[in-house]
Amino acid sequence: MNRSRGSVDDRPRPETRLDTLASPADLQRLPAAALPGLADEIRAQLVSRVTRTGGHLGPNLGVVELTIALHRVFSSPRDVIVWDTGHQAYVHKMLTGRLDRFDTLRQASGLSGYPSRAESEHDVIENSHASTALSYADGLAKGFQLTGSLERRVVAVVGDGAMTGGMCWEALNNIAAAPDRPVVIVLNDNGRSYEPTVGSLAVQLRALRTGTAWGNVFEQLGLAYLGPVDGHDTMALETALRTAALLQHPVVVHCITRKGAGHTPAELDEADHLHTVNPTPTAAMSQAHGPAWTDVFGDELVAIAGERTDVVAVTAAMMRPTGLFPLACRYPERVYDVGIAEQHAVTSAVGLAAAGLHPVVAIYSTFLNRAFDQVLMDAALHRAPITFVLDRAGITGPDGPSHHGMWDLALFGLVPGMRVAAPRDAQQLRVLLRACIAHEVGPTMLRFPRGRSGVGIRARGTVGAAELLTEGRSKVLLVPVGPLAGAALEASRRLRELGIRATVVDPRWINPVDPELLRYAGEHRLVVTIEDSALPGGFGDALARALRRTTSRPQLITLGLPGDFIAAGERADLLHAHGLDAEGITEAVVAGV
Amino acid sequence: MNRSRGSVDDRPRPETRLDTLASPADLQRLPAAALPGLADEIRAQLVSRVTRTGGHLGPNLGVVELTIALHRVFSSPRDVIVWDTGHQAYVHKMLTGRLDRFDTLRQASGLSGYPSRAESEHDVIENSHASTALSYADGLAKGFQLTGSLERRVVAVVGDGAMTGGMCWEALNNIAAAPDRPVVIVLNDNGRSYEPTVGSLAVQLRALRTGTAWGNVFEQLGLAYLGPVDGHDTMALETALRTAALLQHPVVVHCITRKGAGHTPAELDEADHLHTVNPTPTAAMSQAHGPAWTDVFGDELVAIAGERTDVVAVTAAMMRPTGLFPLACRYPERVYDVGIAEQHAVTSAVGLAAAGLHPVVAIYSTFLNRAFDQVLMDAALHRAPITFVLDRAGITGPDGPSHHGMWDLALFGLVPGMRVAAPRDAQQLRVLLRACIAHEVGPTMLRFPRGRSGVGIRARGTVGAAELLTEGRSKVLLVPVGPLAGAALEASRRLRELGIRATVVDPRWINPVDPELLRYAGEHRLVVTIEDSALPGGFGDALARALRRTTSRPQLITLGLPGDFIAAGERADLLHAHGLDAEGITEAVVAGV
Repeated sequence: MNRSRGSVDDRPRPETRLDTLASPADLQRLPAAALPGLADEIRAQLVSRVTRTGGHLGPNLGVVELTIALHRVFSSPRDVIVWDTGHQAYVHKMLTGRLDRFDTLRQASGLSGYPSRAESEHDVIENSHASTALSYADGLAKGFQLTGSLERRVVAVVGDGAMTGGMCWEALNNIAAAPDRPVVIVLNDNGRSYEPTVGSLAVQLRALRTGTAWGNVFEQLGLAYLGPVDGHDTMALETALRTAALLQHPVVVHCITRKGAGHTPAELDEADHLHTVNPTPTAAMSQAHGPAWTDVFGDELVAIAGERTDVVAVTAAMMRPTGLFPLACRYPERVYDVGIAEQHAVTSAVGLAAAGLHPVVAIYSTFLNRAFDQVLMDAALHRAPITFVLDRAGITGPDGPSHHGMWDLALFGLVPGMRVAAPRDAQQLRVLLRACIAHEVGPTMLRFPRGRSGVGIRARGTVGAAELLTEGRSKVLLVPVGPLAGAALEASRRLRELGIRATVVDPRWINPVDPELLRYAGEHRLVVTIEDSALPGGFGDALARALRRTTSRPQLITLGLPGDFIAAGERADLLHAHGLDAEGITEAVVAGV
Repeated sequence: MNRSRGSVDDRPRPETRLDTLASPADLQRLPAAALPGLADEIRAQLVSRVTRTGGHLGPNLGVVELTIALHRVFSSPRDVIVWDTGHQAYVHKMLTGRLDRFDTLRQASGLSGYPSRAESEHDVIENSHASTALSYADGLAKGFQLTGSLERRVVAVVGDGAMTGGMCWEALNNIAAAPDRPVVIVLNDNGRSYEPTVGSLAVQLRALRTGTAWGNVFEQLGLAYLGPVDGHDTMALETALRTAALLQHPVVVHCITRKGAGHTPAELDEADHLHTVNPTPTAAMSQAHGPAWTDVFGDELVAIAGERTDVVAVTAAMMRPTGLFPLACRYPERVYDVGIAEQHAVTSAVGLAAAGLHPVVAIYSTFLNRAFDQVLMDAALHRAPITFVLDRAGITGPDGPSHHGMWDLALFGLVPGMRVAAPRDAQQLRVLLRACIAHEVGPTMLRFPRGRSGVGIRARGTVGAAELLTEGRSKVLLVPVGPLAGAALEASRRLRELGIRATVVDPRWINPVDPELLRYAGEHRLVVTIEDSALPGGFGDALARALRRTTSRPQLITLGLPGDFIAAGERADLLHAHGLDAEGITEAVVAGV
């Protein structure tokens, strides 16, 4: 923390200094001696505020000095700073006039956890999936060159973890080949994303950090290279960045930072240096039942792996968040972390399958969007036995539009031969996971949401592969996807009080539509599908399409998320807002019968 | 061609030698002196056969000696050879017992233009989208290591053009970091894909080729490096590959080849060295009317660019095939070739848009699958004014399942705010392209198929943004997407002869569904949508979903492609097979009324 230049004790009124900075121009006027104190104050604000609201703490603690230096050397918004990923932009937000809104961080109508153009002219790009910043920067630099805006500098701040993503290579290949088009690539090297960074890039960066490199891959590609720079020494950073700004050439500024720096609990956290912290629990959270979906998956996978030696797992830099950590502890040689590289995760899994193994690719729903083509052309076209396990499917909550797992049913429902399952509770997760892994011709997919798995819901009968959750023989049929079964059951109880009998059937397998379930649905007057996924291309559309091929014409109501970006908010609140709770289902049925 | 070792004139009975090679084992028994003659014979076969059937000529002429050497050094199928992309596998097919089937190349039920597991045990991976081979190889090597199959070697043959794709970086990062897991990366460096290879990688490879490199990016990443090797010298290739095979370490064998080598017309072709040649025209092809869709787009874009200086274009290594060549000739500084890098194409276009420009991203429909996440999260979330122009939308023909552009309507119909247009003829292409580029809030997309644009079809009235192609006021409504308007009109004529009046309306804008068109459809008894795209998630599903929100309940028949992989075949034949011609539409209406 560069305490040699100023400690907590001797700084002048540190508690108020940050308040006085309305814009980067104010920051640029500060004397250098005030900066360590400012950094301490920013850290104190990060810790106190993010601990209350929840959010990305570790990454932002690591970029305090870096962000100060960036805003002193470059003049935003004339110069454009692109953050990759956006969750490291909290300090940037504090230094661009948004300190007073941090108590609303990641809440509905509150401050976004990512850059947001609606919030500030200093946010130009709202990216939040990793590895995109260099591509934005290449486009911006091309645009500024073509329009003669050569005084506008383009800065991309990218983590070493993000650099393992293929998009960075595609962008570097373009940036480095244009010596007349300057881009400043600030490589925020903390040795990790969630997980320690993997691969030969990590080896190369370690060698550059420690001065043991016998060459430099960036220079080899044609980029200038400055560094390594102590990413917690504001003056050293400023010097390097000013040099970079003067170069009329694309350049990498290699900054060494520590995730969680300056906050002991984060520094000591071996898992991920407090990558994210959860907010103070609300009443709704405290009421949540059951083990976390992620944990149920992780434990069952260990059990399965104990029975079948051909089962291996693949993660894209998210070993713990996706539940693979127990497996990696038990069978370390059977879990592959490929980096933030979803495309490679999928296609290398096809290679594993071709070698006779059964890979389980565990990934957040939203991030598998990155690899649609690989799931289609590499996994499905080869009919490879791969189980995709999609955590964070459906509404996720505070991360906002880029993190809701709301397109998976539509996307992967397009993939020929893909079988998609959605468990309603922990027991079904175990059962369906085993069924997926037992399936040996073509890929399967299991989707479940963020959070706890709730109370178990027992079956009272079967309809093909589907399970009846109530008595049958009514005119109204509710067909909830996965954990929305609970809301459908509650709606069924409320409807009974209103004199309407409604059957609830859990399809369990969402894609393809089970022929028995289709026949059964056709016997009802009103069918209501309920899914926390986008309506376009979703389960409702699939059932409608299947019904068009039959002679049955029940009235069909399809409840789900609109085909639009959905802002941040609590999962329960957002489900309610879109009619995906007992109240909404009840209302839809009452309006429909 | 290594003619010093043997010329056409002195080789022993060259015409029959290739016939005698039933498997790679036969090839391995040949004396070295026979190889140049064999190479000549293979080239003669490639030229004579591919010229008749059509197919990828240039790439295969370039890998004759390389493929011979690979099959002499490695023992397929024990050793696995993965081809990236698969269209360079013709010589491999000839050397693995498939010479006699080459007259059926790329035809329905014929020899695939790509590796095919159904054809041969020597084809393990059927990849045909670029840049995947290293990922497959990484998975195979991991699998062989885990299962103790260490005697099985993994070889990936990848072009320098494909190496500009991000997946290769993701894979290299994994491969290079595992020194105990040997993978042989055969870099087939001919300096280009369709187009000359771009970027800093191309600069680096040129330096390695010419011996002027001051370092080596592959060695820097931890790979061994052998080369450069003359890719037309079979003995030099064998020596390098044998060394690579003995290394217990991942290694790049850098082979310098010439696309189109040994066939003068291909060597002299400046566009793409006869990358693909068209088959001898059939009667159907000769009857095709109108200018090619691609040319109409390319010419109109030049006109628009002359009027609006903010219009720029982006291609992913396919300048000529996507129609951007005229623009690049006229305004070279306004066209960006980013390499085989669809993700970067999209996100750098968002950067261009953020700098105030209007990018036109021209790409084949099937290849934009690669960038779904970038279209969603980068283009649409930022409401960036970008026009995506999708050539080869719908059934394409002889390239088979990986090249049909049949998922675009479903995929990009999911993207919030995306407006999708489909022109029915050349004039509509011009009109809709201008409308797309005039749209300044959010992305637009224009899709059209391969081939000629047919005869113009004039409008007789309008329904909102849609256009009536017949008189209105019937009980049956046909709603064809884009160029299927012609088939719908012909069906309408046939139906009239059968006493059934059917109105034809061209929606023009496919997504979102126009409210006026929706109301109009609701006034009919039978509505038939017709699209050459996958039915799941397609226009029919969208219209059905929109109708569910109204009180209208017309009978709806949705004609389109099944949600399955579709084999190679002539476009007209495949449309017929799936009921997407006048006959199929007529039958569907007759069965439906």
